Amino acid sequence: MPTNSTSDIQHPTSEDIVWHDHHVSKAERAQIKQQKPCILWFTGLSGSGKSTIANAVEAALFEQKKHTYLLDGDNIRMGLSKGLTFSDEDRIENIRRIGEVSKLFVDAGLIVLTAFISPFRQDREMVRQLVDKGAFIEVFVDTPLEVCEQRDPKGLYQKARKGEIPNFTGIDSPYEAPEFPEIHIRNDRLPIEEAAAQVLNYLEKKGYLNA
Amino acid sequence: MPTNSTSDIQHPTSEDIVWHDHHVSKAERAQIKQQKPCILWFTGLSGSGKSTIANAVEAALFEQKKHTYLLDGDNIRMGLSKGLTFSDEDRIENIRRIGEVSKLFVDAGLIVLTAFISPFRQDREMVRQLVDKGAFIEVFVDTPLEVCEQRDPKGLYQKARKGEIPNFTGIDSPYEAPEFPEIHIRNDRLPIEEAAAQVLNYLEKKGYLNA
Repeated sequence: MPTNSTSDIQHPTSEDIVWHDHHVSKAERAQIKQQKPCILWFTGLSGSGKSTIANAVEAALFEQKKHTYLLDGDNIRMGLSKGLTFSDEDRIENIRRIGEVSKLFVDAGLIVLTAFISPFRQDREMVRQLVDKGAFIEVFVDTPLEVCEQRDPKGLYQKARKGEIPNFTGIDSPYEAPEFPEIHIRNDRLPIEEAAAQVLNYLEKKGYLNA
Repeated sequence: MPTNSTSDIQHPTSEDIVWHDHHVSKAERAQIKQQKPCILWFTGLSGSGKSTIANAVEAALFEQKKHTYLLDGDNIRMGLSKGLTFSDEDRIENIRRIGEVSKLFVDAGLIVLTAFISPFRQDREMVRQLVDKGAFIEVFVDTPLEVCEQRDPKGLYQKARKGEIPNFTGIDSPYEAPEFPEIHIRNDRLPIEEAAAQVLNYLEKKGYLNA
């Protein structure tokens, strides 16, 4: 069988590698990153500022040399969740997959940020149950519907009001606000720097940013 | 609405954070890890040694402070791919999801190792196309069927021969060997240290282990 590989490898130098018969553990993967892995699960209405705040938090963590990853519609909908519709069943499956992927990232030692409306309490609870206690941090981006609708950055509320987008959260589909979020951002007039600082202070205070 | 969070945060200190209006990029995430992210896609028959070699490679990379993650049946089948059967359609979907998750890990800056039989050339090619050129490294663990069947670590070949596991790769379902794998491990008598060294030498030589 043809191959372009073996000619590259003339002398495997097995003496060069330190041998281990154990698997690399979650704790070890986290340790070299000098942080406690967790999920920052941003939830809130469309236009509430989830993605903007999550990006700001990620940028600030990166400045501190923390190892992060951000999951949002941009890298999920056309990839992992391709083929899923916006039916109730598929929305649950979408959140489940995001939860499972977040769990893998936590296992890999990262601080993962997710920015999805995730309107249903039960679905967010399902994700919380996937990971160890303390590894799921629910961040409620609490912006009044009127403010979101006024911002309407993608023109979605306008379409929803015309009936062009059925089951739109806040219009004809409910948003179930978190009852006990770890972090509650009242985002109607808060500057983004302060919203991000609220999350960063929480992580700092709770010891997530140290190994 | 009750919350246990805001009382934690008395004084958001926005002056403490360095402000960025840009998203953290793939290149930046890779850079703080001092490595070139990629997928080491191990493929081969059941019992060929994929998982064993992948674990050995991961352990050696960890010794070098590289940032890795290993995807295998243990963390995928009961999680992300829960509910999928072993039908042709679901096997393709399983590999697709693993590919999409691997792509996210590469985007996050990690070296991701995957250990799945992945018997069909077309499915492996689909994953290769998901990522940038050079980021998909196909590792063919080429162990003769007779050797795998003799090892039979999980007793699966014995069951398959009795007809208890239909569509078992190598028995009544084909294994399509890679034609041009980046790394071709002839694993019938090779000590595991040397098999792992073959992968490590490839990564070293091709510059994946430097930023």
